[in-house]
Amino acid sequence: MQMAELSRRSRVPVATIKYYLREGLLPPGTATSATRAEYADEHLRRLRLIRALIEIGEIPVAAVRHILERVDDESVTLHDMFGAVQYSLGPQPSRPVLDADGQAAGREVDELIAGLGWKIDPDAPARALLASAVAALRRAGAPPGVGLAGYASAMAALAAKEVATMVPDAARGGAAASDPKSRVELAESAVAAMVLHERVLVALHRLAQEDASARRYGGG
Amino acid sequence: MQMAELSRRSRVPVATIKYYLREGLLPPGTATSATRAEYADEHLRRLRLIRALIEIGEIPVAAVRHILERVDDESVTLHDMFGAVQYSLGPQPSRPVLDADGQAAGREVDELIAGLGWKIDPDAPARALLASAVAALRRAGAPPGVGLAGYASAMAALAAKEVATMVPDAARGGAAASDPKSRVELAESAVAAMVLHERVLVALHRLAQEDASARRYGGG
Repeated sequence: MQMAELSRRSRVPVATIKYYLREGLLPPGTATSATRAEYADEHLRRLRLIRALIEIGEIPVAAVRHILERVDDESVTLHDMFGAVQYSLGPQPSRPVLDADGQAAGREVDELIAGLGWKIDPDAPARALLASAVAALRRAGAPPGVGLAGYASAMAALAAKEVATMVPDAARGGAAASDPKSRVELAESAVAAMVLHERVLVALHRLAQEDASARRYGGG
Repeated sequence: MQMAELSRRSRVPVATIKYYLREGLLPPGTATSATRAEYADEHLRRLRLIRALIEIGEIPVAAVRHILERVDDESVTLHDMFGAVQYSLGPQPSRPVLDADGQAAGREVDELIAGLGWKIDPDAPARALLASAVAALRRAGAPPGVGLAGYASAMAALAAKEVATMVPDAARGGAAASDPKSRVELAESAVAAMVLHERVLVALHRLAQEDASARRYGGG
């Protein structure tokens, strides 16, 4: 297909597609004349992934490039490919937690993860995110409403089901992990699964807090 | 206390305190000479609340003003005061969901809330946040990993405990709701409870996803 059709089918403006080509996020099409190139379904799939990363994941272009490298490298496991997506999501831990509160919270998080037997990379950004939230709760004098273990077990039950949907049964096994087409499509569905389930979780958490507050502190 | 001591004790720079005074977020001190004013503990408490709203809640100054009005108005219930805080938190629903997918998701959310018997304001921003996430999951062809009811029951259990910590037992009852000092302090602890528990939740959700992904899709 030509550029106009690629734009129409992907719903990405021509100027944006040209930007991705210049940035090397999208490989060049096959030149058919001095001014025309032909694009394939591969370009369309890749454009859909790039849009999902940028629009759903709100991931900056530099991090999109990093993720695409892992999608393209078939020696990278699906787990590490999904990890590249998750580690690029905001909010990123803003600064290392170095004060005494922060260090204590960091140890608490490490102990929690070790105690649960969870397989988590030592550099996972969510470790630092969790430690900084725990330290801030402590500084605010807010007693944690539920122990961390209570949140962890609720999240484990939800996450196991979410993560299972990221790779359809038909795509399980070595074939999907080493097929470039599948890898691009699986990365796209992983962005949606990770980001949108998080949004569902946050929205329902706020609604549940509103209901609990209405019952406990509402008038009338 | 004078401005310098107010700044030292609140750890808020003098220039920032002057900005809050100009913006009317902080009431003026008692003038003791043409160039000096005396500030009271009330100013310190209020500064702490303003900083919590801005630093922990990342709430814009215009919305901080709106929240402070509700803190100051003793006819506003604690529930509505807490609601003013929660409704100011990001992410805000960016645009009304008007397409067919979005409308169907909105109805699904309304039915879920009605079915659960939750007391939720018709204009609660989390309704629209949830509907847009559900519509986006559907558009992405990602089957919801867990039904919405599964998330809702997990969140209800956590939120009930979190919300209970927002008002210490000693401050329950009518006295706290109508005491200006308590209202300022309760609003401050509510910001911490709502925002930081949400961060704990998001961080543990990501860690749980990483562990589930490692077990399911990790190599070796």
